[in-house]
Amino acid sequence: MNSKITTQPLRVEPFSEDFTGKLSWGVLGNLLLRAANIHASQHRFGYDNVLENKHAWVLSRLVVEMEALPVSGEDFDVSTWVTGVFRQFTDRLYAVTGAANRVYGYAHSVWALIDMESRQPVNLEQLPEGGFSDAFVEKSIPIPGPGRIRVKSQTPCRVLTTYYSDLDINGHVNSIRYIQMMLDLFPKETFEHQRVKRIDVAYCAESYCGETLCFFSEEKAAGVCAVEIRKDDGTVVVRGEITFAD
Amino acid sequence: MNSKITTQPLRVEPFSEDFTGKLSWGVLGNLLLRAANIHASQHRFGYDNVLENKHAWVLSRLVVEMEALPVSGEDFDVSTWVTGVFRQFTDRLYAVTGAANRVYGYAHSVWALIDMESRQPVNLEQLPEGGFSDAFVEKSIPIPGPGRIRVKSQTPCRVLTTYYSDLDINGHVNSIRYIQMMLDLFPKETFEHQRVKRIDVAYCAESYCGETLCFFSEEKAAGVCAVEIRKDDGTVVVRGEITFAD
Repeated sequence: MNSKITTQPLRVEPFSEDFTGKLSWGVLGNLLLRAANIHASQHRFGYDNVLENKHAWVLSRLVVEMEALPVSGEDFDVSTWVTGVFRQFTDRLYAVTGAANRVYGYAHSVWALIDMESRQPVNLEQLPEGGFSDAFVEKSIPIPGPGRIRVKSQTPCRVLTTYYSDLDINGHVNSIRYIQMMLDLFPKETFEHQRVKRIDVAYCAESYCGETLCFFSEEKAAGVCAVEIRKDDGTVVVRGEITFAD
Repeated sequence: MNSKITTQPLRVEPFSEDFTGKLSWGVLGNLLLRAANIHASQHRFGYDNVLENKHAWVLSRLVVEMEALPVSGEDFDVSTWVTGVFRQFTDRLYAVTGAANRVYGYAHSVWALIDMESRQPVNLEQLPEGGFSDAFVEKSIPIPGPGRIRVKSQTPCRVLTTYYSDLDINGHVNSIRYIQMMLDLFPKETFEHQRVKRIDVAYCAESYCGETLCFFSEEKAAGVCAVEIRKDDGTVVVRGEITFAD
């Protein structure tokens, strides 16, 4: 057991599934974010720790690739660790596993630490006393990392407004809520016949309560759909790519 | 410790708060439903147990009244028990408490058991071998029970479509999602200046993916707003009443 890797035992609780009976992507996403904070807090660089220096962690990229999702009542583990820093970014990796060494999938996230006053990213290579480098583990995961996502469409396929229940504790639309909104572009039948295999998200700007979000989507290949979420002034909020498999 | 009352120790986890830093009503609602199933399963009348007879539990009413909500990182307990049955309904009560006997609030829910083939409610007073009467506890809670909610308005204040991520494992819009949708009728400023004290919901009909939901609202008294959610054919899906306090 490597103490630099934090493993959380979890269960697919009632009301955390989608209509197919599998753990919903929304709940999975929030569990990944929660695991990040638990791990970081154990190594003294969690939200509360960095707040002492008026810093805050901001999610920049999130890639989740699942071979399968656990079903109602099933036990599973979320393990997470950080591999290092590069300038203003740090990579946090995840493995989602089950009984008998079953692998459900992996996730790759990229985070920046911002100064809450200047809103500028901090250089993570120059943190006092080496920052959180004691926690680094050289352990990779067998999925492609974040990719380049481009959507040229100028015709929105959906326009919606953000509301109170979309917000996180910072008053921003919750990072995982964007994933739900992107999945909601597909009809129910899509999820009856195919499963979501991979979601790759680039977080470009924050959005706030009452803002208008415009969704633009393009099929990139069979089963691969890119989505861009823009405010009505054209600011890109999120880019995402969703890959379906049979 | 009364074994007929199940108490779950919980914590306000990261990403389970609203923008004010308190446990969100959405997360609280799902925790109440989850506690119901855990308690019922312990007494052999949970979802899985009743499914053996092709029955399913359906939430008919939910009243939640909170003096306060726990904040980020705070520990709290959800206790639940059933008081009895009356024809096709059973009352399940809740207490939400914290350290040093602090009471956050209470909830009162009413459930029906339906036959999955006929979609008709089962008479709970005539279940074989007394049904789950062994679990009854005569313990009341100090909040008013479900009330009569009427909305006459014919002019919708919002119209929306339901999507994939709104659905529960049965393919119905999640009971708690309706509460989020009702709260989302209010601007963010409302939640900055007032707190939601009480939510009373009557579940009248199921709605499904891709349906249009029309929201009608009326102020009943200062800080008391009634909301009715109807399908575009006029079918009433949900009636709710939200009470704000300073």
